[in-house]
Amino acid sequence: MPAMINRAWKLVARPEGAFKPADFQWTEEALPELVDGQVLVRQIYLSMDPASRGWAGSSPTYMPPVALGSVMRGFGLGLVEDSRHQGFKPGDYVQGLLGWQTHAVVDGQAITRFDRDPALPLEAYIAVLSHIGAAAYFGLLEIGKPKAGETLVVSGAAGAVGSLVGQIGKIVGCRVVGIAGSDEKCAWLKDGLGFDATVNYKREAVLSRLRRLCPGGIDVHFENVGGQVLDAALACIAVRARIVLCGFISQYNDFVPPPGPRFLGNVLIRRARMEGFVVIDYEDRYREAMGPLARWLAEGQLRYRTDVVDGLEQAPAAVNRLFDGANIGKLLVRVSDEPSR
Amino acid sequence: MPAMINRAWKLVARPEGAFKPADFQWTEEALPELVDGQVLVRQIYLSMDPASRGWAGSSPTYMPPVALGSVMRGFGLGLVEDSRHQGFKPGDYVQGLLGWQTHAVVDGQAITRFDRDPALPLEAYIAVLSHIGAAAYFGLLEIGKPKAGETLVVSGAAGAVGSLVGQIGKIVGCRVVGIAGSDEKCAWLKDGLGFDATVNYKREAVLSRLRRLCPGGIDVHFENVGGQVLDAALACIAVRARIVLCGFISQYNDFVPPPGPRFLGNVLIRRARMEGFVVIDYEDRYREAMGPLARWLAEGQLRYRTDVVDGLEQAPAAVNRLFDGANIGKLLVRVSDEPSR
Repeated sequence: MPAMINRAWKLVARPEGAFKPADFQWTEEALPELVDGQVLVRQIYLSMDPASRGWAGSSPTYMPPVALGSVMRGFGLGLVEDSRHQGFKPGDYVQGLLGWQTHAVVDGQAITRFDRDPALPLEAYIAVLSHIGAAAYFGLLEIGKPKAGETLVVSGAAGAVGSLVGQIGKIVGCRVVGIAGSDEKCAWLKDGLGFDATVNYKREAVLSRLRRLCPGGIDVHFENVGGQVLDAALACIAVRARIVLCGFISQYNDFVPPPGPRFLGNVLIRRARMEGFVVIDYEDRYREAMGPLARWLAEGQLRYRTDVVDGLEQAPAAVNRLFDGANIGKLLVRVSDEPSR
Repeated sequence: MPAMINRAWKLVARPEGAFKPADFQWTEEALPELVDGQVLVRQIYLSMDPASRGWAGSSPTYMPPVALGSVMRGFGLGLVEDSRHQGFKPGDYVQGLLGWQTHAVVDGQAITRFDRDPALPLEAYIAVLSHIGAAAYFGLLEIGKPKAGETLVVSGAAGAVGSLVGQIGKIVGCRVVGIAGSDEKCAWLKDGLGFDATVNYKREAVLSRLRRLCPGGIDVHFENVGGQVLDAALACIAVRARIVLCGFISQYNDFVPPPGPRFLGNVLIRRARMEGFVVIDYEDRYREAMGPLARWLAEGQLRYRTDVVDGLEQAPAAVNRLFDGANIGKLLVRVSDEPSR
């Protein structure tokens, strides 16, 4: 039997500013034979995440930089096609850092098997029942610690994580204000997801609008964007506010980080707590989150939207949709078809 | 008996930039008769604190602004001369917000009596066994949560709070690096107080020096200064660092807060916690701190230095010594003499 061909995007240059086509190289190479402990996965959905920009840079983040010349790092979902690991068999659905490629030969310990609920579209296992849902769940509940009746503000609210954070905030009884970058996004948040109010940061004066929308101050702020949006939120925090730093997407393309928030002094005066959050720290506890997330999905309390780009070839162009604000909801690349049911 | 005369500095203008003489007015007025529940205190030491600049501004901080035309707010120590409150009698030593005046007629609930240890100079009850010691104790131990073997960095390290923070850090087993603004201050920190290393931020490149002094990163950073010093520290934080925001003295004279730290993103990537701290939140628990502080003082593990300015008349000039970095240790105004022992 001839060896199977793997198609992949390798990172060949460190991006300056936004990702450019020349930062990647398309390769087609024979897949290696499996050795003991390895699994062959055919990727179906590749997740496009803001963190990818950090991973492609030269500075270590919470993971080492992607080595130049190796397959670009990325989270994905797929089907096991072959296995030399006792925990996996062909036909199993798995999630993990499969990379920007059609097939992944990975160590069994690096991926997670999940039981697919046939009532759910497969996309739900990237958009909600994944690192995305885990980020919203643990970031909001464990770092933000919202209480019923409190005011929660979410930036990047129409993004994958932000849209879930706002809805979980509603489930726990918060007043929820979402900040997003278009009227279409704001309409979805209010009419589609039940946010109490929205701010279009491209069209409205964020600080004065937040002041009006949060007269008692912001109790929990969930930050996905950074920059002026964060500064405006800090200007409005209540005493004992909690600020969850989950993402700074507005700055990931900057070579030198821009100056920080002028209103940082409010963290002192108002005895607030600002804490950084990286979802991989919670990997051992993902299961804890998946139960409630699946139940909320089933009950219709949690909705999601996906923005699906077809074909792995499109990944280098697609990823920039995260940074220019083009996507609504979870941005995915469909790498291959799911099996018909 | 003719009414006693109280001399006081009233705040008559909101300062722009540094305090100016014209922001205050010297008054001499008859003291009112005590009513039930009140105590007359003769002030001995008036504490000069950075917070005074915030209190004199027009924006509420964690306390309302000082009303124009009223006695400037300030913490002090004195002797009860008359009392219509059952908790106090003439000759009692008390601490509290006595204000910038020679005598204070205050509600008994607003002051605290303390038993003076005759072995200690009275100044110790402002410099250590006071809101200053409480700030260092609770701020470092409860917000910073240092562990033995960790690296602690303190800015404003030769100031009243900073110098105690560093020493308490040594007591709990940290490696302690102090940042201060003169070679004289740095020498005192190292040779007098046992700090492991120092950075003279006026003469040295803070970021590169911190990187060299803290090769494993900063585990706890105690911030009294803000601005570029904080930014340099954030550039060097370790994973799970704790940043205690206790003061931003470099910015208190600014009309508009300057841009914040460029390296704020490290709080995210390194899952750090940055938390604001205001000592008055711990007023009910001061007693908890005074036991250990007094013991460390007695054992010689905690040292302090005072910078005493003579005469209440000097207060408006003296307070600016906090902001131009002239003082070393606790800045005090001697308002009247302590009784001979």
